[in-house]
Amino acid sequence: MVAVAILAAGRGTRMKSNLPKVLHSLGGRSLIERVFQSCQSINPSRRIAIVGYEAQQVKNALQSLQDVEFVEQAQQLGTGHAIQQIIPPLEGFRGTLLVLNGDLPLLRPSTLEKMLSVHETHRNAATILTAQLPNPQGYGRVFCDGNNLVGQIVEDRDCTDAQRHNHRINAGAYCFDWQKLAKVLPQLSADNDQKEYYLTDVFSSLHPVMAVDADDYQEIMGINDRAQLATAYEILQTRVKDAWMTAGVTLINPDSITIDDTVELATDTIIEPQTHLRGNTKIASGCRIGPGSLIENSQIGHQTTVLYSVVLNSSIAAGTQIGPYTHLRGNIQVGEACRIGNFVELKNTTVGDGTKISHLSYIGDTTLGDRVNIGAGTITANYDGVNKHPTHIGNGSKTGANSVLVAPVTLGESVNVAAGSVVTEDVGDDALVIARSRQVVKPGWRLKGVVK
Amino acid sequence: MVAVAILAAGRGTRMKSNLPKVLHSLGGRSLIERVFQSCQSINPSRRIAIVGYEAQQVKNALQSLQDVEFVEQAQQLGTGHAIQQIIPPLEGFRGTLLVLNGDLPLLRPSTLEKMLSVHETHRNAATILTAQLPNPQGYGRVFCDGNNLVGQIVEDRDCTDAQRHNHRINAGAYCFDWQKLAKVLPQLSADNDQKEYYLTDVFSSLHPVMAVDADDYQEIMGINDRAQLATAYEILQTRVKDAWMTAGVTLINPDSITIDDTVELATDTIIEPQTHLRGNTKIASGCRIGPGSLIENSQIGHQTTVLYSVVLNSSIAAGTQIGPYTHLRGNIQVGEACRIGNFVELKNTTVGDGTKISHLSYIGDTTLGDRVNIGAGTITANYDGVNKHPTHIGNGSKTGANSVLVAPVTLGESVNVAAGSVVTEDVGDDALVIARSRQVVKPGWRLKGVVK
Amino acid sequence: MVAVAILAAGRGTRMKSNLPKVLHSLGGRSLIERVFQSCQSINPSRRIAIVGYEAQQVKNALQSLQDVEFVEQAQQLGTGHAIQQIIPPLEGFRGTLLVLNGDLPLLRPSTLEKMLSVHETHRNAATILTAQLPNPQGYGRVFCDGNNLVGQIVEDRDCTDAQRHNHRINAGAYCFDWQKLAKVLPQLSADNDQKEYYLTDVFSSLHPVMAVDADDYQEIMGINDRAQLATAYEILQTRVKDAWMTAGVTLINPDSITIDDTVELATDTIIEPQTHLRGNTKIASGCRIGPGSLIENSQIGHQTTVLYSVVLNSSIAAGTQIGPYTHLRGNIQVGEACRIGNFVELKNTTVGDGTKISHLSYIGDTTLGDRVNIGAGTITANYDGVNKHPTHIGNGSKTGANSVLVAPVTLGESVNVAAGSVVTEDVGDDALVIARSRQVVKPGWRLKGVVK
Repeated sequence: MVAVAILAAGRGTRMKSNLPKVLHSLGGRSLIERVFQSCQSINPSRRIAIVGYEAQQVKNALQSLQDVEFVEQAQQLGTGHAIQQIIPPLEGFRGTLLVLNGDLPLLRPSTLEKMLSVHETHRNAATILTAQLPNPQGYGRVFCDGNNLVGQIVEDRDCTDAQRHNHRINAGAYCFDWQKLAKVLPQLSADNDQKEYYLTDVFSSLHPVMAVDADDYQEIMGINDRAQLATAYEILQTRVKDAWMTAGVTLINPDSITIDDTVELATDTIIEPQTHLRGNTKIASGCRIGPGSLIENSQIGHQTTVLYSVVLNSSIAAGTQIGPYTHLRGNIQVGEACRIGNFVELKNTTVGDGTKISHLSYIGDTTLGDRVNIGAGTITANYDGVNKHPTHIGNGSKTGANSVLVAPVTLGESVNVAAGSVVTEDVGDDALVIARSRQVVKPGWRLKGVVK
Repeated sequence: MVAVAILAAGRGTRMKSNLPKVLHSLGGRSLIERVFQSCQSINPSRRIAIVGYEAQQVKNALQSLQDVEFVEQAQQLGTGHAIQQIIPPLEGFRGTLLVLNGDLPLLRPSTLEKMLSVHETHRNAATILTAQLPNPQGYGRVFCDGNNLVGQIVEDRDCTDAQRHNHRINAGAYCFDWQKLAKVLPQLSADNDQKEYYLTDVFSSLHPVMAVDADDYQEIMGINDRAQLATAYEILQTRVKDAWMTAGVTLINPDSITIDDTVELATDTIIEPQTHLRGNTKIASGCRIGPGSLIENSQIGHQTTVLYSVVLNSSIAAGTQIGPYTHLRGNIQVGEACRIGNFVELKNTTVGDGTKISHLSYIGDTTLGDRVNIGAGTITANYDGVNKHPTHIGNGSKTGANSVLVAPVTLGESVNVAAGSVVTEDVGDDALVIARSRQVVKPGWRLKGVVK
Repeated sequence: MVAVAILAAGRGTRMKSNLPKVLHSLGGRSLIERVFQSCQSINPSRRIAIVGYEAQQVKNALQSLQDVEFVEQAQQLGTGHAIQQIIPPLEGFRGTLLVLNGDLPLLRPSTLEKMLSVHETHRNAATILTAQLPNPQGYGRVFCDGNNLVGQIVEDRDCTDAQRHNHRINAGAYCFDWQKLAKVLPQLSADNDQKEYYLTDVFSSLHPVMAVDADDYQEIMGINDRAQLATAYEILQTRVKDAWMTAGVTLINPDSITIDDTVELATDTIIEPQTHLRGNTKIASGCRIGPGSLIENSQIGHQTTVLYSVVLNSSIAAGTQIGPYTHLRGNIQVGEACRIGNFVELKNTTVGDGTKISHLSYIGDTTLGDRVNIGAGTITANYDGVNKHPTHIGNGSKTGANSVLVAPVTLGESVNVAAGSVVTEDVGDDALVIARSRQVVKPGWRLKGVVK
C-alpha cells in the first residue's frame, strides 16, 4: 500500500510569476501533473497534494486528475511542517509514504519503482533518492556506508572541503514507513536559522535509512526559475526526440523541433526543422512534416506532407498535401489524396477524397464531397452577422475563382459555379450557376488615375 | 574629464565585405554604435571616431549619434599612428583618454566604469583592460606584479612556453592620462616587422601602468570575421535571454529565439520558438508570442496572442488575437479584444475595439470602428493607379465575403455590405448595400471542360 | 588505375526503415551518392556498388550516376564475402582497389586523395584509413610502428586495458593492390563467432600494410541509426556554414539555418534565422533572406529580399522584394525591382520589371509585362476543370481588387480592369474593362441577422 504526498504549497518566488510554481507548463503539462504522472505506475492508493500558495488555483488546475486529495498547509513553515499536515488524513494508514517535491518533473517512473522496491525489500524506515551530480554545488550531500545505509546528510554550506568531494546529493524524494514517520514527525523543531521544520531532520530518528541513486542524474532536476524551466524542457525534448530517432523517425536539425511526449510517430516519417508536434497528435509512416509547422491534437495519415502550416484538432487521411500556409483551424476531416493549398483556412469542415482547395479560400461549416475542385478565392459566407450556417457541395463539383457560397446553401453533384459568382440559392446536380455581370470594354480609356 | 577615442579606420579584411568592419550589424546596431553605447554611462566630454577606410560611409552611418567628432587616419599605419592623429584635436585637453577598438561590441558599461575608476583612483599613467582567457592562444599576454602593475606585454608569438601559461591577455581597451600620453606618442617608431606604429609601445615610457581584469572574459571578444560575428551575437543573445528569464518571462526553446537588447518584456509572457523581437518593441504581461513570428518596433498589450505573424511598427491593445499568417505592415493601431486572422494584411489602419478581420483581407489606409466584422476576402481598393485614398467604416458595420470597398469611401454605422459587392459610393447608417448580379442557373449543364 | 568498390549490401537494421540504409538522405543526397561523390576527384576507372538488401531499389536510386556497376551479394556473409563477389568483374584489372563503406558520407575528397597517394607512393599491399578518436570505444584499434606500418588490428572487445589507450581506430576505408588482394581473398574463413568473412583478416597475409590518419576524425563517422544521421547532418552543416561565413556571408543564429552543400552564396548577403537553402540555389550579393524561408533550386539576384516565403525552381532578378508569405511554386521568372507580396502564389509565370503583385493573388500560367500592377485579390482562372490556359497582361496594365481573369485571355498595354470584374474576353490597349453591377443601397435596413 503506497500513499503519495506531493509538496505543492510554495510560491516559487524566483519564477517571478502570478502562477504558483507547480502550475507552470513544461511541454504541455504542468510540473505537478508531471510529478503525479511519474508515480502512476506504482499505483498509489492515496494521492495527496499539499497546497498552500494560491491553493484554489492549484486545485482547479488538477480537477481532471481523479482522486487527488488536497491538504492545505496554511503557513509555509518548511517541508517537515508540510508533511505534518497529512497526519490527520493518513490516520490509520499502514504502508509506504512516497514524498515528492512538486517541482521535480523529470523523474522517470522506473526510478520511483526502483526506489520503492529497495525501500520495501529492505524494510527500510526511510529511503532517500540520491544522485551523483557532476556539479553538486548548493546541494545537501548524502554520506552512506558500503551498503547504502545513510550516515548523515550535510548541507552544502556546512560541508568541509573533504565532504564537498562527495557528489552524492539528496534529490528531495523519499519513501517512508508511514507508521514510523508519523511517530517522529511531531517531534520536529524549528530551532534553526530559517525557523523552519525540516523533513530531513527525521532521518536521525529513523532506522534503517537507505539511499538509492537515480541512474540518470538529470531526473532529479528541480525547477526554481525560468532558466531551469527551459533547461528541463531541453532535457525532456532530448529524451523524446532520441526515442523517436531510435524508433526510425528522421529528424532534420532536431534542436529546432519540439515534440510533446504525448505524440506518436511512425517509422520513416521525416520531421523537418522548426516543426512543433503537440498534444494528442499521431502521424503515420512515410510523412514529411515541416519545415515551420505546428500540429496539435491531430491525426495524419501515411504519405501525407505538411509544409509551413498550422493544423489543429484535425484528421487527415493518407496521401494528402497540406500547405504551404494552410490553417486547419479545428474539427476538420480531410480524405485521401487531397490538396489543401496556399492561404487556405478550413474550419469545422469535412473534405472528401481527391478534393482540392488549392488557393486563397476560407471554407467553414462545410461538407465537401469527393473530387470537388474549389477555385482560388472561393469563400463560404457562413456567418450572417448573427448565426453560422452550413454549406454542402456534392461530388465532382467545381467553383470558379473568387466565387462566394452564401450559407445555408447546397450544391449538388457536378455543379459548376462560374468565376466571380455569388451563390445564394441551392443548385441541383449537373447545373451551371452564374451570378455576375457581362464584360463591358471602354476603349481609348488610358489610365489617368481616377478609376473606381 | 574623459575623452573617448574609438579606432574605426580599418577595413576588416577577413569580413570579406564591402562594408567597413565597424559598420556590420550585431543585433540591430553596428559594432561601433555598440562601442559608443558601452561608454555612454561614463559620460565622456569628447567622443572621437578615428576613421579611414570608407571614412565617409562610417560618418554617414553615425550621423544620428550626437557630438561625435571624426578624425581621419588617411593611411592605416597602426594603432599608435591612429592615436597620433588626435593630438591636434585634443590640444589642451586635460584628463583621461579612453581608447577602444571599434570591434569590441560586447563590453559592458560596468566594465569600463570599473576600469576608469581604477585608473583615476590610482592616478595611473595608463590602465589596460585585461581578461583571463580559457584559451589565450594568439593574444598578447600581460604580466603584472601582485598590485596589478604591468611589467611587460608579450605578443603570443614571442612568448616562452612558461609565459604561455599566463592566460591574462590584453583586451585592446586602455585609459591614458592624456597629458602624459601626448608627450610620448610622437616618439613611437615603426621599426618592426609590420612597419606599424604600435600603441602598446608607449607603455614602457609611462608609469605607473596598471591592468584591470574584466569580470567576464567574453566581453573582450573582438570581431574579425563573420564566424566571430555570429559567436558575438550568440553571447549577446544569451545575456538578453537569461535576463528576461530571470525577470519572469518563459522562453520555449530559447536557442531558436532572438531578442534585441532594446526590447522590453513583461512577466508571465510566453515566447514560443522561432520568434524574433526587434527594435523598440514592448510586450505586456500574459501574452503568448509565436511560434514563428517577427515583431519589430511594436507595442503589444497584455493577454494578446501572436501566432506565425509579422508585426511591424504597430500598436496592439490588450486581449487581441493575431494570426496565423497576419501581416501588420506598419502604422497600425488595433484596439482591445480584436481578432486579426489568417492571411490578413493591414497597412496604415486603425481598428476599433472588438473588431474582427478574420480571413483573406487587405485593409489599407482605413479607419475601422468598434465591433466591425470584415468578411473573408474583403479588400479596400485604396490605390487608383496614382494615389492612395482612405476608407472609413463605422461601428457595428459588416462587409460580406469578397466585397471590395473602392476608396475614398465612407460606410456609416451598422452598414451591411452584401457578399461580392463592389462599393464605390458612400453609404449612410443602417443601410444594406448590394452591388452584384442575380443568380442564374442553367440545369443539365454537366462540366465538359469549357466553362469560362 | 583505381577501382572503387562501395559496400552497399546491408539493410542497416538500426535505421528501423523500409529504405536500405545507404539510400537515406543526408542534406539532399543519399549516403551512397555522397560516398561516390567523395571519390570523384580521384577519377576511378571503375565504380562498383556491391548491393544486396533491396538491391533493385538501390540500383534505381543510383540510375543518374553514370557508369556505376552493380555486383550482387546475395547473402550478407561479411565484408570479406562482399569483396569476394567482385573477383569475377575485376578479372584482369591491375591497380588499386579502394574499398569504402556505403555509410561513410563525410569523407573529404582530400582525405581519399592523401590515402591513395600514400598507398601508391609506398607501393603498399594495403593502406588503411585511420583516425584518432577522442572516444574510440567500440572501434577496432590499429597498432602501428613509427613508420605507420600496421602491426595488428584488435577489436575493441578483445583489447587489453593498455591497448584501449590507443585511440587510433580503423575507419573502414582501404586501398588494396588488387592483384595481391585477389590472391588472398579466397582464403578467408568464416570460422568465428559471427560466422562471417571479415575483410580485415586479409591484412595478416599482405605486406606491407600501412595506416593513414584522416586529419579530421569526424570524417570517418559511419551512420547506423537516425541519431547518427542527425549528427552527421550537423557536422556537414557546420562545414558548409563555416565556409560561407569565412567567404563573407552573414548568418544570424546559424544553428537554425540549413544550407545544402550544392548552394552558392555571394558576399555581403545576410541569411536570417530559420532559413533553408536547398539544391541548385544561387544567391547574389547584398540579399537578405529570411527569417523563415525555404529556397530550392532557385536563382536570386543581388539586393533582393525574401521574408517568410517559399521559393521553388524560380529565378528572381535584382532588387526585388518577396514576402512575407509568398509562394513561388515553380517555373517562375521575376524581373528587376518587383514586389511580390503577401499571400501571393505564382506558378509557371513570367513577371516583367517593376511589376507589383502585392496581396492575395494567385497567378498561374501567365505572362506579365513591365510595370503591371496586380490588385489585391486578383486571380487568374487558369483551369476550366479539364485544361490549363494562359493569360497575358501587357506593360503598364492594372487590375482592380478581387478581379478575375478567365484564361485563355489577353490584356493589352495600359489596360485598366475595374475592381470586382470578371474578364472573359481579350482587351486591347488603353481600355477600361468593367464587369460588375451597380451599387444599390437600401436605407433603414439594420442588420437583423438574415442578410445573404
